Amino acid sequence: MTTIKEKIPSSPAYQNLMQLHKNTGRLEAIAEIISRDFLTAMPEGAYSNRVDQISYLQRRIHEDLISKQAQAQLEEAQEHFAAHPQMWGKWHVANLSGMENVYKKQAILSTDLMETSALIANEGRKLHQDILNSGDWSEAEKHLTRVVDHTKRLAERKAKWRNSATLYEALIQDHSPGFDLKTIWEWFNHLDRELSKLYPKIMERQKRRPDIIPLNGPFDKEAQMLLNRSLIGLFGFDFKRGALYETGHSPVEGGTPDDARLVIKNVDDRNFMDSMKSALHEGGHGLYLQNLPAKKKWAYQPVALDLGTTIHESQALFIEMIIGRTPAFFEFLAPRLEGLFHKFNDPALTAENLYRIKTEVKPTLHRRSADEVTYFFHVFLRFQIECDLIEDKIKVADIPAYWTEWMHKKLGIMPQNHAEGVLQDVHWFVGKFGYFQSYSLGHMIAAQLYDKMGEDIPRLQGEIQDGDFHSISSWLTNNIHKSGSLYDTETLLKKATGSAPSPDFLLSHLEQRYLTD
Amino acid sequence: MTTIKEKIPSSPAYQNLMQLHKNTGRLEAIAEIISRDFLTAMPEGAYSNRVDQISYLQRRIHEDLISKQAQAQLEEAQEHFAAHPQMWGKWHVANLSGMENVYKKQAILSTDLMETSALIANEGRKLHQDILNSGDWSEAEKHLTRVVDHTKRLAERKAKWRNSATLYEALIQDHSPGFDLKTIWEWFNHLDRELSKLYPKIMERQKRRPDIIPLNGPFDKEAQMLLNRSLIGLFGFDFKRGALYETGHSPVEGGTPDDARLVIKNVDDRNFMDSMKSALHEGGHGLYLQNLPAKKKWAYQPVALDLGTTIHESQALFIEMIIGRTPAFFEFLAPRLEGLFHKFNDPALTAENLYRIKTEVKPTLHRRSADEVTYFFHVFLRFQIECDLIEDKIKVADIPAYWTEWMHKKLGIMPQNHAEGVLQDVHWFVGKFGYFQSYSLGHMIAAQLYDKMGEDIPRLQGEIQDGDFHSISSWLTNNIHKSGSLYDTETLLKKATGSAPSPDFLLSHLEQRYLTD
Repeated sequence: MTTIKEKIPSSPAYQNLMQLHKNTGRLEAIAEIISRDFLTAMPEGAYSNRVDQISYLQRRIHEDLISKQAQAQLEEAQEHFAAHPQMWGKWHVANLSGMENVYKKQAILSTDLMETSALIANEGRKLHQDILNSGDWSEAEKHLTRVVDHTKRLAERKAKWRNSATLYEALIQDHSPGFDLKTIWEWFNHLDRELSKLYPKIMERQKRRPDIIPLNGPFDKEAQMLLNRSLIGLFGFDFKRGALYETGHSPVEGGTPDDARLVIKNVDDRNFMDSMKSALHEGGHGLYLQNLPAKKKWAYQPVALDLGTTIHESQALFIEMIIGRTPAFFEFLAPRLEGLFHKFNDPALTAENLYRIKTEVKPTLHRRSADEVTYFFHVFLRFQIECDLIEDKIKVADIPAYWTEWMHKKLGIMPQNHAEGVLQDVHWFVGKFGYFQSYSLGHMIAAQLYDKMGEDIPRLQGEIQDGDFHSISSWLTNNIHKSGSLYDTETLLKKATGSAPSPDFLLSHLEQRYLTD
Repeated sequence: MTTIKEKIPSSPAYQNLMQLHKNTGRLEAIAEIISRDFLTAMPEGAYSNRVDQISYLQRRIHEDLISKQAQAQLEEAQEHFAAHPQMWGKWHVANLSGMENVYKKQAILSTDLMETSALIANEGRKLHQDILNSGDWSEAEKHLTRVVDHTKRLAERKAKWRNSATLYEALIQDHSPGFDLKTIWEWFNHLDRELSKLYPKIMERQKRRPDIIPLNGPFDKEAQMLLNRSLIGLFGFDFKRGALYETGHSPVEGGTPDDARLVIKNVDDRNFMDSMKSALHEGGHGLYLQNLPAKKKWAYQPVALDLGTTIHESQALFIEMIIGRTPAFFEFLAPRLEGLFHKFNDPALTAENLYRIKTEVKPTLHRRSADEVTYFFHVFLRFQIECDLIEDKIKVADIPAYWTEWMHKKLGIMPQNHAEGVLQDVHWFVGKFGYFQSYSLGHMIAAQLYDKMGEDIPRLQGEIQDGDFHSISSWLTNNIHKSGSLYDTETLLKKATGSAPSPDFLLSHLEQRYLTD
């Protein structure tokens, strides 16, 4: 591998910075582990102290990264690079640029802003749960208004640093670095137009499919977790360097390449497909995490980290939505499910019926249970609301009406209460603005990778049907995972697929799967 | 509580030190959690990075605690106390003294010594496991010789700081602060003489007891863990602020008052009494940890910490060996066990038979399975070997012969291999010297507390028989736990029992239980 041969540039400042990032990386790794423990093992009485411990660690990391010494070393290392570019291999160039990024990201934060962010992240999660139970929109409005104000203050600093055209553009850079807002708007408008045409055609065509035979539970919960672990294991998730947990919390991934912890919600014994979907999704995240550059030399360095939420989501959706919904996947799965769940010859468990279940397109109020075709509309709605909120075109109080109107217009259905509408996602409550577009950008990228993978692996469907996912995971590792942050997203995609990112791959994929199969 | 009313002394230096200890305490708490995760959840592939992360945290804590600023503040705070003693309540006085202790303990460590200690602690655990499998004594000898050398280097620094008469005295202060070596020798020689007389009498008397009816398994493993959790719950362990885990590792406790994590070894379905014994032992540790002063003001302060291993062991042995082996405890337990394990009228599960099993005195080669009477001999053997090793009277190579001779002389049995002898404990392999005496000192203290508790709680045996352990846990909390490190061990014991520590309480307890019951 190229990464091995590159000599460390003879800049003492850069070498010190590598040591600094090794140290803050250790603290980040520790924060990851105690945050995962928070979800999987911590007793409830430790809640407030644990929150305090995590934010204390973040404060130490912040102080270490923005020290005067670190700032001086960064400048010195940059001067060294400018004076002796020939001494810098591409991994180190990318690493130095990552260091600058990390520095600036931290340097724009004041203690006050950090504390408010931490408070919102922690209180928001609890508050969201409370409001979901009480349905009290006025509480939500109060909290979200505060979050939007705080987010705008953050965005102003980010926009200044990033030279962003708008505040919202500055925010999406956190999760979709390298994508500009104008292009995303063009793509999303394009997807909106085309999917609005595709959707009725698909609905029409679907009428001719045989009726779905509903799943006939119960499906033993332990057997479901065995299924989930076995599947992500077949995809290459290494359980010697990670684990899959079932908890009461929303699905989430985290940890480090040698300790990747995936969390899915408690399995439901009436429907094994929900937990399987989550496990495949988190498994895709886990594969990315485990296959990042992990050589000791690069451990904890910025260049060895992932490319952000958008590529992360592309990897998760690739396994969950793309591979996990092929007919071949269900051919592999069906006979094994009969054995696993003690339901021989159950007509609901045929490959055809399972495929029909997972590819059924129908309007739904919930993003997380949306099908592959209408999923985009849910994302686009949230994207527009965020954009308008941050650009002061609407207020938090306007969201419910906005939401209802859009759902009615796009999908012909309307939420009957806030839980079916704006309260369904925790993101805004914990201060995550600029995140939602990653799902659809990730879906676009997943489709683009699938297109190229089909060329590169001629017997792809046959291998899926055999439950042999080795070529798939090698392809993803070689083309995406192992590069870490060496390239920006566009370069990485061009190298992997020969094309710049484009929504057309997703449209072709959906047409292929939902109109010609 | 007195702790609430005490005003914080108006010394800015002391106030800064309180903040420093709050911060290092947060890092210590984090290290505790990731160390517990190490045993209960970490995938094996994360081993080396986790070890590195833990020792990095320890290094940060060390640097924070011995900074020039911290040193200056300590001197300033001490001057403030000397000038204005009337402004200092007793909790703050004890806290300042704890701060000085922490400072000195850290200040004598060089980076080199810290790294060697960490290496020994981590490699030693693995090596011990390997040697147990291979039985290769020469490997053990090599490692232990290195550990002894390192321990002596540490002891020299500790002896200087503590003004200890000998190197070994300096080492035992880590685990038994406040006890001097000369007194321990007197007590242990006294116990040795008296127990050597008691032991044959007990063996003789025991012959007249009805034969033990062996336990007739299997005992469902989940039911065993239910039993273990229920019992420590009845003793007052709060599962909202802690948990009990079953793992492949040796039993251990750790965590913080709001997140106490107890670990016992995998339960054995042939014998529920082994895991119950461990759970009661760890439960005793857990109660101490959970009931330390936990008011926000004192969180992470030295005065709010426990008094060290000796008092910790006294609490564990109090629940496990003292209360957990009363006839009344088995009266409570017996009928419930019949139900729990689906063995109605099993003659092995009568209160009388269970009591006979747990109070059977017989020579055994293993410390951990030793009975309450001969347990001391196992500790005394190790104590003498440590003392002689550190004072250069014997070499590591001499241990096996020493061990065999002593076991033969005291108990009339001899190890047939090293696993039955010197390899049975992990302590020395990980660098824990000066620890073993805590078990017998703890046993002495437990007996002393039991003596006083019998006076203070007139219906003690009746309450145990009812499974009502409230008075017991309140008594322990009020007399021991809630004082944290406010008093030294001797003062605490005098306050709790009216007497200075003495081996006579243990001797009376053993005579009472094994010769007159």
